[in-house]
Amino acid sequence: MLFQVEMTVKLPHDLHSEQAAEIKAREKAYSQQLQRDGIWRHLWRVAGSYSNVSIFDVQDNAALQDIVSALPLFPYMDITVKPLCRHPSSIHDDDR
Amino acid sequence: MLFQVEMTVKLPHDLHSEQAAEIKAREKAYSQQLQRDGIWRHLWRVAGSYSNVSIFDVQDNAALQDIVSALPLFPYMDITVKPLCRHPSSIHDDDR
Amino acid sequence: MLFQVEMTVKLPHDLHSEQAAEIKAREKAYSQQLQRDGIWRHLWRVAGSYSNVSIFDVQDNAALQDIVSALPLFPYMDITVKPLCRHPSSIHDDDR
Amino acid sequence: MLFQVEMTVKLPHDLHSEQAAEIKAREKAYSQQLQRDGIWRHLWRVAGSYSNVSIFDVQDNAALQDIVSALPLFPYMDITVKPLCRHPSSIHDDDR
Amino acid sequence: MLFQVEMTVKLPHDLHSEQAAEIKAREKAYSQQLQRDGIWRHLWRVAGSYSNVSIFDVQDNAALQDIVSALPLFPYMDITVKPLCRHPSSIHDDDR
Amino acid sequence: MLFQVEMTVKLPHDLHSEQAAEIKAREKAYSQQLQRDGIWRHLWRVAGSYSNVSIFDVQDNAALQDIVSALPLFPYMDITVKPLCRHPSSIHDDDR
Amino acid sequence: MLFQVEMTVKLPHDLHSEQAAEIKAREKAYSQQLQRDGIWRHLWRVAGSYSNVSIFDVQDNAALQDIVSALPLFPYMDITVKPLCRHPSSIHDDDR
Amino acid sequence: MLFQVEMTVKLPHDLHSEQAAEIKAREKAYSQQLQRDGIWRHLWRVAGSYSNVSIFDVQDNAALQDIVSALPLFPYMDITVKPLCRHPSSIHDDDR
Amino acid sequence: MLFQVEMTVKLPHDLHSEQAAEIKAREKAYSQQLQRDGIWRHLWRVAGSYSNVSIFDVQDNAALQDIVSALPLFPYMDITVKPLCRHPSSIHDDDR
Amino acid sequence: MLFQVEMTVKLPHDLHSEQAAEIKAREKAYSQQLQRDGIWRHLWRVAGSYSNVSIFDVQDNAALQDIVSALPLFPYMDITVKPLCRHPSSIHDDDR
Repeated sequence: MLFQVEMTVKLPHDLHSEQAAEIKAREKAYSQQLQRDGIWRHLWRVAGSYSNVSIFDVQDNAALQDIVSALPLFPYMDITVKPLCRHPSSIHDDDR
Repeated sequence: MLFQVEMTVKLPHDLHSEQAAEIKAREKAYSQQLQRDGIWRHLWRVAGSYSNVSIFDVQDNAALQDIVSALPLFPYMDITVKPLCRHPSSIHDDDR
Repeated sequence: MLFQVEMTVKLPHDLHSEQAAEIKAREKAYSQQLQRDGIWRHLWRVAGSYSNVSIFDVQDNAALQDIVSALPLFPYMDITVKPLCRHPSSIHDDDR
Repeated sequence: MLFQVEMTVKLPHDLHSEQAAEIKAREKAYSQQLQRDGIWRHLWRVAGSYSNVSIFDVQDNAALQDIVSALPLFPYMDITVKPLCRHPSSIHDDDR
Repeated sequence: MLFQVEMTVKLPHDLHSEQAAEIKAREKAYSQQLQRDGIWRHLWRVAGSYSNVSIFDVQDNAALQDIVSALPLFPYMDITVKPLCRHPSSIHDDDR
Repeated sequence: MLFQVEMTVKLPHDLHSEQAAEIKAREKAYSQQLQRDGIWRHLWRVAGSYSNVSIFDVQDNAALQDIVSALPLFPYMDITVKPLCRHPSSIHDDDR
Repeated sequence: MLFQVEMTVKLPHDLHSEQAAEIKAREKAYSQQLQRDGIWRHLWRVAGSYSNVSIFDVQDNAALQDIVSALPLFPYMDITVKPLCRHPSSIHDDDR
Repeated sequence: MLFQVEMTVKLPHDLHSEQAAEIKAREKAYSQQLQRDGIWRHLWRVAGSYSNVSIFDVQDNAALQDIVSALPLFPYMDITVKPLCRHPSSIHDDDR
Repeated sequence: MLFQVEMTVKLPHDLHSEQAAEIKAREKAYSQQLQRDGIWRHLWRVAGSYSNVSIFDVQDNAALQDIVSALPLFPYMDITVKPLCRHPSSIHDDDR
Repeated sequence: MLFQVEMTVKLPHDLHSEQAAEIKAREKAYSQQLQRDGIWRHLWRVAGSYSNVSIFDVQDNAALQDIVSALPLFPYMDITVKPLCRHPSSIHDDDR
């Protein structure tokens, strides 16, 4: 089941730079593992911003919550979620 | 080059139903041709709405404008556009 | 799987009153069937408005879309959707 | 009398982690007591967020204020309240 | 139990003037009856607008819904509702 | 002359608790004096919030500014003001 | 007593042009009479818009309401009102 | 003197197509004359929309108003205006 | 050339009180000099707020920027600017 | 390929003034190099603000992201991006 998730990172300016670097390193490793697992299907940068557009493929709402709330940057992001499903005009039976 | 495009259809309630059906049929055919051409890469319905989330793969901004403004439903939609590019944490060289 | 759905009805003032009555009658019958089926778990009026707060229990996002887009009042409503899941502080294993 | 209450937690990033943990522990205990008392009827997490959707069953507006303003996380949350009542299409005489 | 209700009238410009006059006359009679009944406690015009600020004194949420949704101008108004209760700094035990 | 004033308190989380308590005590004393003087006509808590709805009865705009800007919590509140006057449907000649 | 009033004209596109011209002529005459009376102190066009910024000098809120609601274009305008008073840094005792 | 002007065209769906075509033809001729006169310095389409971003070079605010309010599409557009001036980091003395 | 400028002061709560007082004193002196020079034509307090409505009379956009960005409170204010010009219904040739 | 980029600088008030000066100096040097390279085509100050309107000429979305995210002030700015293309009414084949 697919969800579009948009995340905008808003790091407090007085966060220590080493702490920020450490959080971002964990975020990257975590996101890459989820990509390899086929859960984080797509991950794009929105050009000119510190935001991304992502497509998640999860079992249900609870799985989405588990994954998103475990993001190391979760406390520092504005996040919007949209549940997706097949569009009647799609030519793909299972567009992921 | 990728763009995320979100479209929300707002048909006037006094549009004749045949006219609406004819516009929607043309929209479907047009969108399916663009999907077959590899331009309209992804097309998802946002669950519980008359909206979609789409990913377009076009040569440049002008191509995006040509394609989107030719949508039969173009006069009846709220549309937002976000330019996308590779995310530094993506494991894909060319995620489309 | 649960979703919170909020709907605000905005009937065009020049809709014929018989047509409006007919749509509302079908909406009522449809919603009551879904309630009897255990899909439309809760349905409350927001006091002082023409809005409702609803909880849907569906199999997945696609089922939500099928059900909501088939509402007779669908073309005349502003609708927002929020995917729900178990809250870690809930005392219920399966709060529906 | 029912109210829908939506809460979004916004903890300041420079709150000491022990203080945050202590507040959250008190919040959990308090919310579970209210659930056992039948006052906090439903408590759901909004998937992909640090928000919840809740249904409160209280005697009147004053009781709602007493309960909500006593939440340990009250100073750190954005809260919206909607008064609810029976919907004319509900099949339940007393949907709680 | 008190509620603050704010109403902004938005009459469609193509409503027949006799029909508008008839609706407004019924609205006036209805509101004055509710004022005499002690339900519509206060009714003020917001200066420079077609809006009012009102205080309703009702038994519960359901009573508020019955009264507000029966307003002849109900289909033509934007309405916001806020549940009120005693303020801890009020010098009145029962400020109505 | 009446004004509706809505105030939402937003205390910075790192304000010392004694300082906050001292400001709130002065606010309470000040507001109660204004209520006894017949200036702060009504003061209600909005249920489920740290907001109030108030009705002020002052000589003119300048008096409103003097009174509101002298509130001890003034630097910590979001405030909206609406000038009020008699509503043509009011049954009271001088509703205060 | 001064108020800043901002008005944006939104004429329905299907208003008959003669009717629109007649309303605008009455609006102009009415506004010029109020200017000559010293009530409508300032009237400026916001460049690049169909909006104006105005300063009214009236006895009280009720007078403002009487004057603004009698504008021939009143049903076709978005209007915002701000009560004004002397600024402590003004060098004028009575800036109008 | 430069202004950035953003215009979004919102043609009513029930405008006769010949009338719309005639308005657009006049708009095009008018805008091209202003471009040749060096007044409408830049005119870009926002990709994926019925909007443009424009830079006007006019003598003063009044000239801007005269030019913009005379646009044949003026009654059918949402317009925002921003006054521009030299940026201290610009390498151009007179960037137009 | 006239501009309406609206300013809302938002002083950080942890600004030292002497520093705040010093900035405000400079702001007052600066604004009074500009008033004496005929540049800051009008300066009004918005009643019940820490905002003002001002009318500036400057040579061009660049002069406005020079003057506004030199305000001692500039870093602590939300500012909106509207270019003004003569209104066709104004009875004054040069309303300042 | 052109993009309009609007940037509003929001420096935290407790940033050390030397650090702010150093960031701004780097921002200026960086922006002037990009202007000399023909990438940052236009750079205007919005009068009365700490914002700019800019036109970038880049190869693609990825280049825009590289350039914008490398701005020394990037962490301290609100940024909006609009992809631009030739307007059908433009008299210029290649308006940059």
